[in-house]
Amino acid sequence: LDAILQEYEKEEKRAPVAVILGHHPAFFLSCCCLTPFGNNDYQTAAAFLGEPLGLTPSESWGENFLVPADAEIVIEGEVPPGVRETQNPFGEILGYYQAPCEMPVIEVTAITHRRSAIMQDIFPGHTDHWNLGGMPKEGSVFNVIQRNVPGVRAVHLPPSGCGRLSCYIAIEKRFDNEPQKAAMAAFVEMPNLKLAIVVDSDVDVFDEREVLWAVNTRTWWDRDLQVLDRVQSFRGWLGSSVALIDATVPEGGSYPERNGIPEEALARIGVEGILGKEVG
Amino acid sequence: LDAILQEYEKEEKRAPVAVILGHHPAFFLSCCCLTPFGNNDYQTAAAFLGEPLGLTPSESWGENFLVPADAEIVIEGEVPPGVRETQNPFGEILGYYQAPCEMPVIEVTAITHRRSAIMQDIFPGHTDHWNLGGMPKEGSVFNVIQRNVPGVRAVHLPPSGCGRLSCYIAIEKRFDNEPQKAAMAAFVEMPNLKLAIVVDSDVDVFDEREVLWAVNTRTWWDRDLQVLDRVQSFRGWLGSSVALIDATVPEGGSYPERNGIPEEALARIGVEGILGKEVG
Amino acid sequence: LDAILQEYEKEEKRAPVAVILGHHPAFFLSCCCLTPFGNNDYQTAAAFLGEPLGLTPSESWGENFLVPADAEIVIEGEVPPGVRETQNPFGEILGYYQAPCEMPVIEVTAITHRRSAIMQDIFPGHTDHWNLGGMPKEGSVFNVIQRNVPGVRAVHLPPSGCGRLSCYIAIEKRFDNEPQKAAMAAFVEMPNLKLAIVVDSDVDVFDEREVLWAVNTRTWWDRDLQVLDRVQSFRGWLGSSVALIDATVPEGGSYPERNGIPEEALARIGVEGILGKEVG
Amino acid sequence: LDAILQEYEKEEKRAPVAVILGHHPAFFLSCCCLTPFGNNDYQTAAAFLGEPLGLTPSESWGENFLVPADAEIVIEGEVPPGVRETQNPFGEILGYYQAPCEMPVIEVTAITHRRSAIMQDIFPGHTDHWNLGGMPKEGSVFNVIQRNVPGVRAVHLPPSGCGRLSCYIAIEKRFDNEPQKAAMAAFVEMPNLKLAIVVDSDVDVFDEREVLWAVNTRTWWDRDLQVLDRVQSFRGWLGSSVALIDATVPEGGSYPERNGIPEEALARIGVEGILGKEVG
Amino acid sequence: LDAILQEYEKEEKRAPVAVILGHHPAFFLSCCCLTPFGNNDYQTAAAFLGEPLGLTPSESWGENFLVPADAEIVIEGEVPPGVRETQNPFGEILGYYQAPCEMPVIEVTAITHRRSAIMQDIFPGHTDHWNLGGMPKEGSVFNVIQRNVPGVRAVHLPPSGCGRLSCYIAIEKRFDNEPQKAAMAAFVEMPNLKLAIVVDSDVDVFDEREVLWAVNTRTWWDRDLQVLDRVQSFRGWLGSSVALIDATVPEGGSYPERNGIPEEALARIGVEGILGKEVG
Amino acid sequence: LDAILQEYEKEEKRAPVAVILGHHPAFFLSCCCLTPFGNNDYQTAAAFLGEPLGLTPSESWGENFLVPADAEIVIEGEVPPGVRETQNPFGEILGYYQAPCEMPVIEVTAITHRRSAIMQDIFPGHTDHWNLGGMPKEGSVFNVIQRNVPGVRAVHLPPSGCGRLSCYIAIEKRFDNEPQKAAMAAFVEMPNLKLAIVVDSDVDVFDEREVLWAVNTRTWWDRDLQVLDRVQSFRGWLGSSVALIDATVPEGGSYPERNGIPEEALARIGVEGILGKEVG
Repeated sequence: LDAILQEYEKEEKRAPVAVILGHHPAFFLSCCCLTPFGNNDYQTAAAFLGEPLGLTPSESWGENFLVPADAEIVIEGEVPPGVRETQNPFGEILGYYQAPCEMPVIEVTAITHRRSAIMQDIFPGHTDHWNLGGMPKEGSVFNVIQRNVPGVRAVHLPPSGCGRLSCYIAIEKRFDNEPQKAAMAAFVEMPNLKLAIVVDSDVDVFDEREVLWAVNTRTWWDRDLQVLDRVQSFRGWLGSSVALIDATVPEGGSYPERNGIPEEALARIGVEGILGKEVG
Repeated sequence: LDAILQEYEKEEKRAPVAVILGHHPAFFLSCCCLTPFGNNDYQTAAAFLGEPLGLTPSESWGENFLVPADAEIVIEGEVPPGVRETQNPFGEILGYYQAPCEMPVIEVTAITHRRSAIMQDIFPGHTDHWNLGGMPKEGSVFNVIQRNVPGVRAVHLPPSGCGRLSCYIAIEKRFDNEPQKAAMAAFVEMPNLKLAIVVDSDVDVFDEREVLWAVNTRTWWDRDLQVLDRVQSFRGWLGSSVALIDATVPEGGSYPERNGIPEEALARIGVEGILGKEVG
Repeated sequence: LDAILQEYEKEEKRAPVAVILGHHPAFFLSCCCLTPFGNNDYQTAAAFLGEPLGLTPSESWGENFLVPADAEIVIEGEVPPGVRETQNPFGEILGYYQAPCEMPVIEVTAITHRRSAIMQDIFPGHTDHWNLGGMPKEGSVFNVIQRNVPGVRAVHLPPSGCGRLSCYIAIEKRFDNEPQKAAMAAFVEMPNLKLAIVVDSDVDVFDEREVLWAVNTRTWWDRDLQVLDRVQSFRGWLGSSVALIDATVPEGGSYPERNGIPEEALARIGVEGILGKEVG
Repeated sequence: LDAILQEYEKEEKRAPVAVILGHHPAFFLSCCCLTPFGNNDYQTAAAFLGEPLGLTPSESWGENFLVPADAEIVIEGEVPPGVRETQNPFGEILGYYQAPCEMPVIEVTAITHRRSAIMQDIFPGHTDHWNLGGMPKEGSVFNVIQRNVPGVRAVHLPPSGCGRLSCYIAIEKRFDNEPQKAAMAAFVEMPNLKLAIVVDSDVDVFDEREVLWAVNTRTWWDRDLQVLDRVQSFRGWLGSSVALIDATVPEGGSYPERNGIPEEALARIGVEGILGKEVG
Repeated sequence: LDAILQEYEKEEKRAPVAVILGHHPAFFLSCCCLTPFGNNDYQTAAAFLGEPLGLTPSESWGENFLVPADAEIVIEGEVPPGVRETQNPFGEILGYYQAPCEMPVIEVTAITHRRSAIMQDIFPGHTDHWNLGGMPKEGSVFNVIQRNVPGVRAVHLPPSGCGRLSCYIAIEKRFDNEPQKAAMAAFVEMPNLKLAIVVDSDVDVFDEREVLWAVNTRTWWDRDLQVLDRVQSFRGWLGSSVALIDATVPEGGSYPERNGIPEEALARIGVEGILGKEVG
Repeated sequence: LDAILQEYEKEEKRAPVAVILGHHPAFFLSCCCLTPFGNNDYQTAAAFLGEPLGLTPSESWGENFLVPADAEIVIEGEVPPGVRETQNPFGEILGYYQAPCEMPVIEVTAITHRRSAIMQDIFPGHTDHWNLGGMPKEGSVFNVIQRNVPGVRAVHLPPSGCGRLSCYIAIEKRFDNEPQKAAMAAFVEMPNLKLAIVVDSDVDVFDEREVLWAVNTRTWWDRDLQVLDRVQSFRGWLGSSVALIDATVPEGGSYPERNGIPEEALARIGVEGILGKEVG
């Protein structure tokens, strides 16, 4: 966006802008793509949708600037060159207000919308924001870990870490060093990660209570926690150190077996139909 | 129970026993009381109920041994002197199986129950067990902390710590050392505690996600985490070290303000009626 | 005192003051009591004395202001409202000079005394000050420790720690974690404590040489010393960290037995009559 | 002694022995000398005495074996070749019993003594033993430190460390690293040292209370204590790690001044004649 | 090799083997390839050579088993099924002897060689072995680091670390955390790495003296060294912990500039022609 | 030099100076001597040479100021009183430029030299400087260590540490604590030492690759590395902490034996004549 704006400002022209509020989820996922400058973003959206994206002339600029035909709301406007106003404090993803800064402005020229249009938005620094932030990265962290720890089974970037500050990793451990290898791989890959907890594959990393239960019953704080300094390059108030917690059952020890209900007993009474899935 | 049993065994007599499955919750809370030997437990239950406890002659011993009249199920039986059988492995509160050991047995003499009786039980090492285990202690930990940290606001022993291994403490901090004082007080008081997390009073300690959000955004691992060895005397597999995490905002820093919605805005749109309480 | 003074200053009146130098020790102990504002301090003193406190009209205000009849010296005076002069540098309890600050003044109106009156005072930042400072707290620290470490046997706040910076604790240890529990309890309870040394009950905590002998022969510095940061909230030059030293004999080891003289041998030769009690 | 005994045993002869209990202190100091095998010990004693040592024929062997003429008690005897009996448990210098071991025996042939002879002995593992053990080493530790820390002022090996486990060092500090240099020099030089405390030269290292007062008011445990492993090679139960405590006032800080009494005030009232020397 | 041998052993047949001592370096590099079972290794060698590999019938099996025509020495032999003899102790790559183990044997059937044949071999656990071991991995470590630290400039696995135990990394640092990121990436990627040293790009990582000069003049041991446990899964005597040394100049400090000779001065006197390249 | 100059400046006289470039190495070694003020430096040189030093009248002052007759180059000049010019930035021994400072100047009065004179100089902050800096100290460090670790075999102050920042020590270890004792002795003795590595006597401390090989294969970073703060008093950018690395084989373990070639095999093939000495 910045590059387009700069081109218009160089010629002292007003840049046309259309803000799309509400469309097919695939449309929004396409917006998260990092594509090279000059890319046709409507075609990228079409690729995500798996069908052509319906377009229509805009109110403001007609055929010179097409807008999606099926959007809930379209705000058309123009960015005047050289104008800046103070943006912020608004909430950011980590749940705190950002410091004010100067930003370009849009002068709205038209608003079109469907009847009873539904505006879909993300609430910054809340659960939906965190889910959306973490989910797309879980796959890439999983892949990086798997290169050196083939027994990795699941990776979760939970909302409690805003989808980027903490990471839960489940592995089938073959060697005592694999929790450290898995955690280090995650720290190398993710620029904001501060906490990595590695659990055995009997623990559901998507259930935070279960992850903490593993930490509470399997971690010796003097043996299984390691802190490393200057691993991340944060804004000052977040620090730069990270923590690795190995919450896997240690090799070779006589660890007690986890509570469980025999498969046959469960099958006999059909307990899942009654209770649903239970935690510990 | 052991003391009563020993008296019967000394005289080589069979000890009468009645197991009550299902009654008023106040009846069960009265059972958690630690009362001196010789106490009349039925009167204790009556005190909890706030009214006399209905009693009725037992099937097995008639007027010699009364049982609650309003129980769902009553199992009557006798413990033969000197007989022991192997109990366990059964699940214990931490979520693992206990090692087998020798225990007395009950020879059942009668079972009485209401029509469509509802048997109420605790599922050992699962959520209801952990809630029941933690809740009664939260108050006493709160009181101990308050002696030296008057700004303590809330204490939670979450299910993820089985109601005893971890503790979340919210305080209004006046001095930088109060998180440590509060955590140490909890470790002194609780014989099984391995992890104490102290947060500011803007954090809801009963919402685990919010506690972890505070840890992830406010804790510097190289500054705010401290580990102490040989603080607890556990069964070997649990270790003896503990961790203190100070997740409060540091004094005197220019910490960003937390995201929030102005009271007046909330009031104007009546958002609570629509969304309910939200996390972050 | 401050509250009384403020009342007088509000009305721009001069506050009468009597300074008592030298009286029965029970009189002075009564002065260390923290009693609510409005308390009759002369009655408190009488309670400590176990008999009525003799009073007599003052020189300056007659029956309007009684003073103790049996004091060695009485200095009567008035505090003029709104007047402040620089107090300090005087020595404080830790053995250093305090920074200057503004304080009210007394204008002396009369001095009365017994013939050959003995003025009793405390020498700030010296032994008598430290003994008086530490002694009254030893009991309360003992009680707090005993709640969780029933085997506590003795607690000493030695003059070398000015009666508040260091604490020696003797326990009959049942579990390896009890020295830590005892020390942590002391740190929670005492706002100035920086060092806690825990010894076995064969060591006399009131004999500093013996406590250090235990540290020197029983402590492994890499195993038995733990440091915790930000536990106290001091004036800057004292730091905020504390040290726990476990100088008890470790469980289960084959520790050599301490030198000793058989009871019967001592009895036979009556050595105590000759040598008195000896250290190591 | 061992070398002499071996020569006699090789020829299956009985070795003559004289035990001297009670003589001039210089005689005993001469016994602490490490002199080469074949040395004339009587002449060494004479050198210490500063005059010839009076000798007289022994009861058992006459002119063949002279004994001191001025001893309080002389026990003469012979060590039979090849005979060993169990010695110990006796108390050793650290205050614990030694394990039993096999040692040669003396068969007493004669005991001579002065009228009302006074037997002078050291009580092993008690104060006199510790003073005697520590004193001779203080000078050599002082010299070693002075090579690299010219401002060293005093060194004490206190009885609480049995004259060898702990060391108090006073220096006039020019650089912040000198306490560490001084302590390290002591650890290199002394084979049993476990604890070194370095204080400023205003602290009297021979007054243990004052040394601890400096530790309690000047040491930050997180900054001024350092532990090093495997520095000493002890019997197992003593560990191998050592602690360095820097209890000097830090450079460049605005440390409060120590309480003191102006010289002129002291001179005026002649307080030393009344009170003697006072601690803090 | 093992797979082929097993097939022969299953049919109780003797496996033909040809050992090639001395050939074109490309031939040997082709042997380091990990190719799937069933691969035609002669064709792989041809691909490395960039031309067809000359083959000739073997002495022992004629056209049934071809051997390279241009080898310096060819040893032909057969592996009898089921026979094992003790191999080792021979030296291994780390410079120590391996423990003995049971291995199959070759019964030599023929040896052919060129006139004045040159046998080329690697001396296990010496410089050529270490160079050959480290070189091929330097590229892959470089690539892994570059993913997250784009300023990486060079990677060396020096002979002093046997080509696998230590790693020197040069980066153009943009942020203070990049040395840690680079080192962690290397530890994740390399299964034997124990030590990673990260230097600025002005340091030549292939010159060990220069790397150590950077460590000695730029590393603060209390700030720039970090140790992490259980990162590698070694044979016991090697331990499992690793060290990260950040030997880069810290950000924002006023570090002195490195000695150097102005380009123009060097050019003027043509010093390189005289001295060759010099170290520090 | 400074003392001589001050005398001349006091009388506002010009001080004569002769700079000798190129002479017998013994002449230069004599210049490194620290001799008292007033010493005849020419006689010191003669003592090093073992014969009289040839002198000749100077060009500038004739018989009043003699200069060496056998010097390659002699620069004669005078230092005018009270004149100072900016010296630096020039390179210093650690390999960095020094900050500028004001220094006296020489006004050259004559230059004499031999035909084809060779100017011998040290290149500051490069190898010859470092060798010259380290070599003379190796002996004194060796002697200091030997006092308490008699098994010390060799000490090297390598060029990579500029002859003063790092030290390699080889010992025949009798007890597990001797590497620490040896390293501490070196730190006490040398005012700039930051790193001490202790190896077994099978390692050649003058071969840096071999020292690092010992570190890489024998050091456990979590067990054998110790860091101590405030041991040296450096210019700020060098820090004050030091590292001790114990790279000796641990006592009592079953460490594998080092690769080697049997003496008899070497003798038989005369390999030294062919290969020279090999590293690992």
